[in-house]
Amino acid sequence: MTTAHLGQHLACLHQTPPLTHCITNYVAMNSSANILLALGASPAMLHAEQEVAEFVKLSSALSVNIGTISAPWATGIQLAARTAQASGTPWVLDPVAVGATAYRQQLCAELLAFRPTVIRGNASEILSLNGVANPGRGADSTASSDDAYTAALQLARQQGCIVGVSGETDIITDGQRSLRLYGGHSLMPRVTTLGCGLSAAVAAFVGANPSSPWMATAAAFGCFALAGERAGQRAKGPGSFTPAFLDALYQLTPQDLDTCLKMEPMNVA
Amino acid sequence: MTTAHLGQHLACLHQTPPLTHCITNYVAMNSSANILLALGASPAMLHAEQEVAEFVKLSSALSVNIGTISAPWATGIQLAARTAQASGTPWVLDPVAVGATAYRQQLCAELLAFRPTVIRGNASEILSLNGVANPGRGADSTASSDDAYTAALQLARQQGCIVGVSGETDIITDGQRSLRLYGGHSLMPRVTTLGCGLSAAVAAFVGANPSSPWMATAAAFGCFALAGERAGQRAKGPGSFTPAFLDALYQLTPQDLDTCLKMEPMNVA
Amino acid sequence: MTTAHLGQHLACLHQTPPLTHCITNYVAMNSSANILLALGASPAMLHAEQEVAEFVKLSSALSVNIGTISAPWATGIQLAARTAQASGTPWVLDPVAVGATAYRQQLCAELLAFRPTVIRGNASEILSLNGVANPGRGADSTASSDDAYTAALQLARQQGCIVGVSGETDIITDGQRSLRLYGGHSLMPRVTTLGCGLSAAVAAFVGANPSSPWMATAAAFGCFALAGERAGQRAKGPGSFTPAFLDALYQLTPQDLDTCLKMEPMNVA
Repeated sequence: MTTAHLGQHLACLHQTPPLTHCITNYVAMNSSANILLALGASPAMLHAEQEVAEFVKLSSALSVNIGTISAPWATGIQLAARTAQASGTPWVLDPVAVGATAYRQQLCAELLAFRPTVIRGNASEILSLNGVANPGRGADSTASSDDAYTAALQLARQQGCIVGVSGETDIITDGQRSLRLYGGHSLMPRVTTLGCGLSAAVAAFVGANPSSPWMATAAAFGCFALAGERAGQRAKGPGSFTPAFLDALYQLTPQDLDTCLKMEPMNVA
Repeated sequence: MTTAHLGQHLACLHQTPPLTHCITNYVAMNSSANILLALGASPAMLHAEQEVAEFVKLSSALSVNIGTISAPWATGIQLAARTAQASGTPWVLDPVAVGATAYRQQLCAELLAFRPTVIRGNASEILSLNGVANPGRGADSTASSDDAYTAALQLARQQGCIVGVSGETDIITDGQRSLRLYGGHSLMPRVTTLGCGLSAAVAAFVGANPSSPWMATAAAFGCFALAGERAGQRAKGPGSFTPAFLDALYQLTPQDLDTCLKMEPMNVA
Repeated sequence: MTTAHLGQHLACLHQTPPLTHCITNYVAMNSSANILLALGASPAMLHAEQEVAEFVKLSSALSVNIGTISAPWATGIQLAARTAQASGTPWVLDPVAVGATAYRQQLCAELLAFRPTVIRGNASEILSLNGVANPGRGADSTASSDDAYTAALQLARQQGCIVGVSGETDIITDGQRSLRLYGGHSLMPRVTTLGCGLSAAVAAFVGANPSSPWMATAAAFGCFALAGERAGQRAKGPGSFTPAFLDALYQLTPQDLDTCLKMEPMNVA
């Protein structure tokens, strides 16, 4: 397990752009689509119960995000997740603010039954999803990634999935292997829906590299860590960060991932 | 009443970031979230009837905007506004294009019954809300803030609320005290949903300073006036205005509000 | 038919900003509104069945886009399109990803019955709408504009409408006259919803120039071709492209359209 392997996953994505079906919140839709396009993936945003099952089967991966959830969206999401499970399409769950209300907790419990390939959340969300009361502040975490490491390991093992925790440092684990990633920038929590966009990016990477979802997830996190660092150096604030971040994602090369990313294995005992 | 007091309100917001529950239109969601984050507040966008009451009680303030209204959203908004009234959570009403259709007029009439803390609109909207036929042009005003001053005073007195009118100059009144603010930039009407974002910012400021909502409202308007002026000086058009505006909001200090903002009291007779 | 005529259409739009009613997808709303404002038009985004008929009658034009369609939106769209047809309001259909699912095909077939003034799509969408199986990749085309020329001609003649096909080169035809436009930039497919924004721009131009919808459509396409070219020269990636593109739209003059745009007539046999 060396960083040298992550670049391959970006190369695969560049070579065969994965069609990435996103059912995400209203706030994140535009920025997630732009993030996928900057990376080189093909986004598709649609959620109606009349067509999601048909579309999941055309897609390389599905990304589900409950940010601005309501009843008709929950219906579409459940149908899409069920279809993804049945057809073997990899799918990512982003449990936005799951600890904040009973409605979100209930919905996420139902979605876990469809066996997401990856769960991507911040520390508060991963803690909540693992049964630790931690409402966060809206979509923002009040805990660090390391605070949520035990919960992430448990969740990964219980669900048989990969868990990615984003924060000042990031953790990616499948319950047997864990990585801690460094990078990003202090401006990132001042820009909305970057976490949602990361979940979409994880889906794209896993769609492009379905046989190695843990490494693919790490590659997506690695792109955000590097592009965030680079954009932060150019930005004067959260406004100029956004275009700089998309430019940096667009300019990232497989070699960047292999040579510039700071990461280390974590104890999984 | 001097400008020297407004800076305190930004200092309070910086010190204890208010969780600001926004039920706003699809067009404004992303930009409003970014505006709140740039200012230092914590946005949360959710609207489902299953959870809004629960979430209003966790929040420092609620911002309601009817821009892309439809029946399920009206249900969520009414429940949220009722809860805010009952729990004493300050809330802001942004009556987008209220004069344009009967549906909007009816909904706003119902929402006024829940006693908003602040109404923030453009001149056409404030005139319409006060019963003067003035449809505006979609979300855009066809009148100046001063044209709407009498309506703003009447509305503030009738409703027992603060009214903020945005335009080339801004007016903030509680029916007893009125301020006229100068600043901003001619590019601002060429950028969508800045008014919606201002309503969200007003909610954040009032949430951070619940004991002085009139001054808090003026502080939010003041941030937009100053940041708009500064962004306009750097921008080459409406596209470069947006990142420059978010950067300027992020860089604003309490001292900027105290020393740079041009404002004057208005006759309230 | 010379390029010299297109500048007039931008001059008309600048002189009398058309109120442009957009019923578009969640991803495109904000960017379409900003595109219309940068061009000098007045956007209005609303979709509820309670008010669309009332609002269509106030508007200069209607733009309909099915990107993130669902049942209540389909209801609002059908009512708006029916009203536009009845009231003689020009309207534009953007059949996003029509070939991807049966749901979209069915809805578009229904909407064609309300006689759109203009259909704007990419090559895959125009082929699909004309009955050629071509699902594209989500919202992205897998064919070139020239591949879709025969379909565009047939569709224009059958429907008695204008068809605009966007891609690396653009085609605008009313079945009797056809133009091929050059311009734009290779970054444009890496930015989400520019096609959707072009449909909104077409509606604005046709609303401002209702007596010459074919030329008005070409003028809208021409603005995108020129502004895209200019923005591409300044941009470092898809992130910096967006603000540069809005600035370029804002700065465009009628003379730019008359002197800088590269275009040629096409054989209509």
